[in-house]
Amino acid sequence: MRDMLGREEVITVEKALEFIFSNLSPKLPPEKSLKISESYGRILSRDICSPEDLPNFSRSTVDGFAVAAFDTFGATEGMPAYLNIQYEILMGEEPDCELKKGEAAKIATGGMLPKGADAVVMLEHTQKIDEKMMEVVKPVAPRENVIQAGEDAKKGEIILKKGHKLRPQDIGVLAGLGITDIWVYEKPKCSILSTGDEIVPPDQPIKTGQVRDINSYNLTGLILNEGAVPLLKGIFKDEYTIIRNIVQKSLEDSDMVLITGGSSVGAKDVTAQVINDLGKPGVVFHGVSLKPGKPLIGGIINGVPIFGLPGHPAAVTVCFEIFIKSVLKRLSGLSKDRFNKEKHTIKARIAKNISSSPGREEHIGVALEERNGEVWAIPILGKSGLITTQIKADGMAVIPLRKLGVQEGEIVEVRLF
Amino acid sequence: MRDMLGREEVITVEKALEFIFSNLSPKLPPEKSLKISESYGRILSRDICSPEDLPNFSRSTVDGFAVAAFDTFGATEGMPAYLNIQYEILMGEEPDCELKKGEAAKIATGGMLPKGADAVVMLEHTQKIDEKMMEVVKPVAPRENVIQAGEDAKKGEIILKKGHKLRPQDIGVLAGLGITDIWVYEKPKCSILSTGDEIVPPDQPIKTGQVRDINSYNLTGLILNEGAVPLLKGIFKDEYTIIRNIVQKSLEDSDMVLITGGSSVGAKDVTAQVINDLGKPGVVFHGVSLKPGKPLIGGIINGVPIFGLPGHPAAVTVCFEIFIKSVLKRLSGLSKDRFNKEKHTIKARIAKNISSSPGREEHIGVALEERNGEVWAIPILGKSGLITTQIKADGMAVIPLRKLGVQEGEIVEVRLF
Repeated sequence: MRDMLGREEVITVEKALEFIFSNLSPKLPPEKSLKISESYGRILSRDICSPEDLPNFSRSTVDGFAVAAFDTFGATEGMPAYLNIQYEILMGEEPDCELKKGEAAKIATGGMLPKGADAVVMLEHTQKIDEKMMEVVKPVAPRENVIQAGEDAKKGEIILKKGHKLRPQDIGVLAGLGITDIWVYEKPKCSILSTGDEIVPPDQPIKTGQVRDINSYNLTGLILNEGAVPLLKGIFKDEYTIIRNIVQKSLEDSDMVLITGGSSVGAKDVTAQVINDLGKPGVVFHGVSLKPGKPLIGGIINGVPIFGLPGHPAAVTVCFEIFIKSVLKRLSGLSKDRFNKEKHTIKARIAKNISSSPGREEHIGVALEERNGEVWAIPILGKSGLITTQIKADGMAVIPLRKLGVQEGEIVEVRLF
Repeated sequence: MRDMLGREEVITVEKALEFIFSNLSPKLPPEKSLKISESYGRILSRDICSPEDLPNFSRSTVDGFAVAAFDTFGATEGMPAYLNIQYEILMGEEPDCELKKGEAAKIATGGMLPKGADAVVMLEHTQKIDEKMMEVVKPVAPRENVIQAGEDAKKGEIILKKGHKLRPQDIGVLAGLGITDIWVYEKPKCSILSTGDEIVPPDQPIKTGQVRDINSYNLTGLILNEGAVPLLKGIFKDEYTIIRNIVQKSLEDSDMVLITGGSSVGAKDVTAQVINDLGKPGVVFHGVSLKPGKPLIGGIINGVPIFGLPGHPAAVTVCFEIFIKSVLKRLSGLSKDRFNKEKHTIKARIAKNISSSPGREEHIGVALEERNGEVWAIPILGKSGLITTQIKADGMAVIPLRKLGVQEGEIVEVRLF
């Protein structure tokens, strides 16, 4: 992974992702059964078919009168149709009446149509004459203001596909069909290893020259946001045997392993060495044309993805968004179909000229601001090692690989936090 | 709330929101202390100041050599500066050396600068001659590749404001500052009451004419997504005393009360009556110029917001997004500043002509699709009472109040689910 001059050879983000995905185990995660009330945000491991027609009876979509449409044909304000209010449909009950010619039944939204009725006249288009008679001033067509039995979903029809992430409305529909138990994929587990001789836990005293562990906390939140389970393994010295042992142990209980830091000279090589020594194919790339995030190491050990992340917190966030997030989605069983629906990006105008080196994709923290109805992205500038810049940002603007920079006012894509 | 002809008078969404917000209790939620590891997504109830300079020492942002910048001035490939590699800075340790003229110290990213050094030369801009000597081929300016002590945050500086919702990177920064316990607001609690004589729980047998409770499940997920606590109160008959009792009880343990359904004729008036009878000001609007969602009732009982939602699941989702979400954010203590940052909307081209009545804001379910690098919104059409249309949608396109519709290819705003 080094060129003739000993420099690390970097590859594009696209290529790096391809290397990771083509080496991932094709196995889908194990599944488990859950109550729907515990399944918000979970991913379906089996297709769901409608067990019945939905709705299972023809129902009104408005408040008004169930009628035979024929009886209203030609009705106008000046020449209304007169109908007898013969019945009232009670909610939740199957009407036992049958409309005859010239008859109507009072019905509410959701009420079941009686026999002899094929449409509903809205209350607004009627005029009451007395308790037993009304005028219809506007005709209805057959099926107007009615949902037919099975119109929403037919019995046996696939309504939600395997690999779908369940949103509130999806769970609502399952409840509507009487489906209260479903099969979902287990959440992927992701180990977090912090390395670096200078790193101390945030609740312990600190000496000059040391820094507190930021990345474990940042990664924990990022992993939780993806619906996965973070496993905090702790802080480890930059030594081959120590790192090797903890990575080996982590491979036993994790679907992915993340190693951050290793910022002392040579530490990056320790991570790469461990990945290469523990299984095949080992390191699949070392260095990407991404800023921040260039030193990223990507590897696969017997189907399990493992990343060696740079120590800078801002770089960790970018590497997570670009690489780890999509690998986690794949490990979670999310279908390809839903994959791209999960991106939260917006277009905004950049508020400053930004230069960028060609041949690398650059990600810049931006605050968003509305100016005359347009969204502007204000770059949060600062040295790459600063961490509070990330607090001030609402998202990251992306300058693509082949661009030399962007000019004030140009449209950029912003990935929202 | 009725005009001379007895029709319900509707108001705009803007006006309705104003009525609700101006009657809300100005009280902020109670606060509680939490460990940062349990605070992802929570809202700060106090400003957080930096307890120390961050970093608390001047550190290198690159791998290379700590130098006095002066010693490198004028250096070029042809005329390099020669420096003695006198020391190596170990990670996590305070160097006890002091550079003299012509001396350099090997340093890694994050390493602490020794006395006498004010910049770092990147490894790439040096050439090793032997173990003790190297060439610098490019000059550095003072402070180049260095983060000064306090450059990230000064001791006493406010780094996160009260009302901020904690993202992963924010928790990372707190860890970096050694802040492990913080004060956050309690999550707002929101009661869900399902009403309607025809509604049955999804795990129970159903008779023709009855429907299963969809809205409680949809609302539970929507409330959870906002970081609030849903309190499921059950399904109730459309009767004044029953509804009054459960609303009264719910006001005791909730920060907001939601009543769905009440679809039998006259049930809407029961909800409005109960809201008016239980406290001041009672109903503040009854009907909004919104589709779906027109029959929405908004009320305040002694500072506590209460909504009477229509029974249609699609209308429930829209009313939640437009009204309940923003009230919940306010109840959660989120600062106004952060309020608008929470919207997830994108612009897309609509794939079909859609007509709309002027004088109402219309929300249409859309599936998103990429065509030649542009996002298109494909309307999911269907009668308003259908529920599977919501499964097929990725978001809702908005046709504003004063528009008569949109034409194919026109840009619309889409609120993502």
